[in-house]
Amino acid sequence: MKHTISVLVENKFGVLARIAGLFSGRGYNIDSLSVAETMDPSVSQMTIVAQGEDRIIEQITKQLNKLVDVIKVQDYAGEEYIERELVLVKTHTTSETRAEVMQIVGIFRGKIVDVDRASVTVELTGTEDKIDALLNLLKPFGIRELVRTGKIAIAR
Amino acid sequence: MKHTISVLVENKFGVLARIAGLFSGRGYNIDSLSVAETMDPSVSQMTIVAQGEDRIIEQITKQLNKLVDVIKVQDYAGEEYIERELVLVKTHTTSETRAEVMQIVGIFRGKIVDVDRASVTVELTGTEDKIDALLNLLKPFGIRELVRTGKIAIAR
Repeated sequence: MKHTISVLVENKFGVLARIAGLFSGRGYNIDSLSVAETMDPSVSQMTIVAQGEDRIIEQITKQLNKLVDVIKVQDYAGEEYIERELVLVKTHTTSETRAEVMQIVGIFRGKIVDVDRASVTVELTGTEDKIDALLNLLKPFGIRELVRTGKIAIAR
Repeated sequence: MKHTISVLVENKFGVLARIAGLFSGRGYNIDSLSVAETMDPSVSQMTIVAQGEDRIIEQITKQLNKLVDVIKVQDYAGEEYIERELVLVKTHTTSETRAEVMQIVGIFRGKIVDVDRASVTVELTGTEDKIDALLNLLKPFGIRELVRTGKIAIAR
C-alpha cells in the first residue's frame, strides 16, 4: 500500500541523509520525497511517499519518531487529506501538432509557461492521477524534459 | 550563492541517502529537495537547492557525477531556466477575516481547495518569491499548517 508520510524536522544537515537511510536500510524505496523550509527557518517539512507492507512502514515511522531531529511524524494512510503535485513538462511540437497539444493542456487547465519553434513547456498542478493522465496524453507527441515535485499533502 | 541542481538518477534504494550524504558530509545543508519518477519508472529526477561557495558546490556536483547511479547532473546557476514551486497553506480565519484572506488569495491567483469554520486551505504555484510574498501576507492571520514542495526547474 502507498503511504504518504509528513515529517517535521529540525533544519540541520544530515537529517535528510538519516531519514533516507532509514528507508533504504530496510530495502524500501521512496517513490517521491519533497522537503522545504517552513515559516520557521529552523524547521523543515518533508513529505515522503513510499510503498510497502503496512507493518514495515509502521516500524519505519516509529524509528523516525525516535530520531532526535524529528519533531513530528504523520502517516496520512486512512486519514482525510488533500494531495497535490506540480509538474513542468516540455513537449515536442511541430506547427501541425501545436494546436492539439495546447488544446489538451487547456482541458487540464494547465498553463503554458514557455514556447519555442519545436516545443511548449507546460505547468500543471493537481493530484498524481491528473498529472499522470496529462503526461499519458502528451507522451505520443514526445516528452523532451519532465520535472515533478512529488506529492505534498495537508490534512483536511 | 543559491544553486539549483537537477540530478537524473537510477531509481534504486540508497541513491537518495548517498546524495544527501554528499552534501551533509561537507556540512552543507540542502534548502530544498524534491525527487519523483520520470516517464521511465527506473529513472528518477531530483531537484536540489543548496547554498554555498561556488567552489564547494562545484566539487559536490563533480562527486555527484561520479556516483554510479547518477545519470546526469545539471547546475542551473548562470543558465536560463523556469522555476516553480507549489505550496499548500492552511490559514486561520474568522467570519471577520475570511473575506480579506480570500481577496489576498485571489490577487495571487491562488486556489482555495478547502474551507471550514475556522480556516481556509490555499494552493498556490509560482516562483519562490511569489510564494514567500503570499505567505508573508497570510502570516498575520495565523498559518496553521504549511507544506511546500521545494523548487523545481526546467531549462528554457
